[in-house]
Amino acid sequence: MTAVVPSTSVRLDPADLHASLSDPAMRSMNFLNEVAGRFPDAISFAPGRPTEDGFDLADLHAYLDAYALHLAETKGYDRARVHRELFQYGRTKGIVHELIARQLELDEGITVDPEAILVTVGAQEALWLVLRALRATDRDVLLAVAPTYVGLTGAARLLDMPVRPVREGPDGVDPDDLLAQLAAARAEGLRPRALYLVPDFSNPSGRSMTLPGRARLLEIAAEQDLLLLEDNPYGFFQAVEGERPPTLKALDTGQRVVYLGSLSKTCFPGARVGFAVADQRIAGRDGAGGLLADELSKAKSMLTVNTSAVSQALVGGMLLKHGGSLLRANRRQIDTYRRNLDCLLRGLARRLGGLDGVHWNTPGGGFFVGLTVPFPVTDELLDVAANRYGVLFTPMRHFHDDDEVAAHQMRLSCSSLTTDQIETGLDRLTGFITARI
Amino acid sequence: MTAVVPSTSVRLDPADLHASLSDPAMRSMNFLNEVAGRFPDAISFAPGRPTEDGFDLADLHAYLDAYALHLAETKGYDRARVHRELFQYGRTKGIVHELIARQLELDEGITVDPEAILVTVGAQEALWLVLRALRATDRDVLLAVAPTYVGLTGAARLLDMPVRPVREGPDGVDPDDLLAQLAAARAEGLRPRALYLVPDFSNPSGRSMTLPGRARLLEIAAEQDLLLLEDNPYGFFQAVEGERPPTLKALDTGQRVVYLGSLSKTCFPGARVGFAVADQRIAGRDGAGGLLADELSKAKSMLTVNTSAVSQALVGGMLLKHGGSLLRANRRQIDTYRRNLDCLLRGLARRLGGLDGVHWNTPGGGFFVGLTVPFPVTDELLDVAANRYGVLFTPMRHFHDDDEVAAHQMRLSCSSLTTDQIETGLDRLTGFITARI
Repeated sequence: MTAVVPSTSVRLDPADLHASLSDPAMRSMNFLNEVAGRFPDAISFAPGRPTEDGFDLADLHAYLDAYALHLAETKGYDRARVHRELFQYGRTKGIVHELIARQLELDEGITVDPEAILVTVGAQEALWLVLRALRATDRDVLLAVAPTYVGLTGAARLLDMPVRPVREGPDGVDPDDLLAQLAAARAEGLRPRALYLVPDFSNPSGRSMTLPGRARLLEIAAEQDLLLLEDNPYGFFQAVEGERPPTLKALDTGQRVVYLGSLSKTCFPGARVGFAVADQRIAGRDGAGGLLADELSKAKSMLTVNTSAVSQALVGGMLLKHGGSLLRANRRQIDTYRRNLDCLLRGLARRLGGLDGVHWNTPGGGFFVGLTVPFPVTDELLDVAANRYGVLFTPMRHFHDDDEVAAHQMRLSCSSLTTDQIETGLDRLTGFITARI
Repeated sequence: MTAVVPSTSVRLDPADLHASLSDPAMRSMNFLNEVAGRFPDAISFAPGRPTEDGFDLADLHAYLDAYALHLAETKGYDRARVHRELFQYGRTKGIVHELIARQLELDEGITVDPEAILVTVGAQEALWLVLRALRATDRDVLLAVAPTYVGLTGAARLLDMPVRPVREGPDGVDPDDLLAQLAAARAEGLRPRALYLVPDFSNPSGRSMTLPGRARLLEIAAEQDLLLLEDNPYGFFQAVEGERPPTLKALDTGQRVVYLGSLSKTCFPGARVGFAVADQRIAGRDGAGGLLADELSKAKSMLTVNTSAVSQALVGGMLLKHGGSLLRANRRQIDTYRRNLDCLLRGLARRLGGLDGVHWNTPGGGFFVGLTVPFPVTDELLDVAANRYGVLFTPMRHFHDDDEVAAHQMRLSCSSLTTDQIETGLDRLTGFITARI
């Protein structure tokens, strides 16, 4: 507080507000979401957004009607009950849990009791709720494969929960480093509660775990009594046709995995619907209400009460329109992302191939490519790129607390651009980079 | 964790999860939201829900179209931009902030910079975000007028933030007790950061603050350098026509008041849209981004990213359809609530008037009446009332940590019933009560 004497106007001291609000990591999400708006004419490789060419207002109306019809015909609700379901307060764990369970079965081979699903305001809320449950004491810490999704870092900061990095290896997680980090944390008297990772086309690195890597990780989790927080927003978006590797959750026989589902990329971000699959049993709470999902639900009831019924109806209606499968709903989008990633990778090779100190990875799918350049990539330099060259990207340092390699990297996202925009954007990016080396 | 040796199946110990999840207060919200579902044939005086007779699926379509038209015509957005606004990730602070600012001006005489408004997933998220910002150290505590909205208690529990009760007086807050509680907390080395209250038709007591009471509270807040968290879900719902007392925020000249707005009662709960007006300046963060709303926005970006664009569009469309005024949009609902409250109060007098140890208050509006009976009102007894008498209510102990008076009270809500249901419900309630005295 500013003073004990009356003041005409409140002036809050940042030192009197929670430390997370002064933490640079907390500005990243706003920065990443809003940077595109600051330079409307720039071509932006920054945001991890879905393609926009499928968006149509008429679809929203159709989804809503499809869900209302489903309530009437499949559930047998009368008109008043349908309206109550859409307009009133509702079940804290959500109303589209059965449709989501069916989708997981159809698209991912994950068999799960719908009662173990908690529908949330995007995967971000699910993530926060899981961290809230696991951060029981000052000793509870989280491990995360680095580089790490900035939303994980931010959610942990809101809970003063330390996040300790684990190295990314060729299989997705370096198992030796994981074991070393577990041992180190425990030697300090800490309790590593879970490992957070994005096994498929990770944000920001684009890396994916191999099947043996997944099996080994589950083995370590069982041996070390560790939970795995599997975040899977990009799993559908393989660059080449063929069998997708199973998710950790599909391989999980001991409820080691809390699965975090985002529908922002597979339905649309404006619905803000995600979910957690939390089928872990709670000791002493047998029978109904005895799952981790039920514990998370208590916290959710005090955070956002429930997820918007209309938003859930839109997502539910979209599922119904595509036979319950999001893989089917995303056929065209998957093609778009394939074409875009191919265009980006070929375009980089054509323009920057062989340049000293310039290299990039070749992800097997997803939205992101990591590009390394021989100069530090800062937010200030991003301003120069936007102003003088009309091109945007994300400095990789947003995803690392402190890392020398990441300091020279940028994340390039191609998901919401056309191939023409990618080509023009790469021309501009090449101008920006070659002027600096 | 259960064991350090591998286990076939995870079994989490409640003692290893955050303490809030085992706190009885955390079960209240789920209990209150879902109790009605457990007894579908009972008449329920339990939920603080809006009336359902205005709900119509066709309205959702109309609101969505009205907002899309507004974006096209008033904002000049082309088709692609309209779709982007509804479908994509968006501004963390929200997209209907200007419409909300206009509504506050029209309906409440509150003049506020739209930039000081943070649109949230219901008022509940706004409340949590404010508490998160103010809970900077272990010394930071909250004061709350008791009995207290259970969502406040729960949000504070999620942050391990102590809530210290302040007595309700005839003016709404007992100023002497407020000063005494402030002094006591400070003597213990604590920092009381804010006082939470519902000045209009409080949940659960139904009480309202007088104008002199409001003025005195603002005076104390300035003298004591205290913030006021004004939660106002029921202000429109006066029992008698006439001038409404101004909100604390309308009287606030020193940015002492953080105003929490719920649109669940004035629009509809299924949208899950609320907001905070947080126009407090942050020292050293001058210019754009220097308001408490901007600090809250950073935390929100890591909690729910942004509020569903479609939900905001529905609320925005509803505002547009009624000339920007929610008071106008709620004319019929206000009449319904008046008729219901009158029916409830007359019905209580007719059936229970003069009975020893049975009395109730006469709120000037809102959804709630507090009924005192000469026996303890427990959740177990609620089960008896539901099963044997077909009537539901809320035991007042859900709103008190520990209080002798509240232990004998029930909250009766009449907002989502018809007058016929109220009469039948009161007959049943009378049977239940008279069998016990």
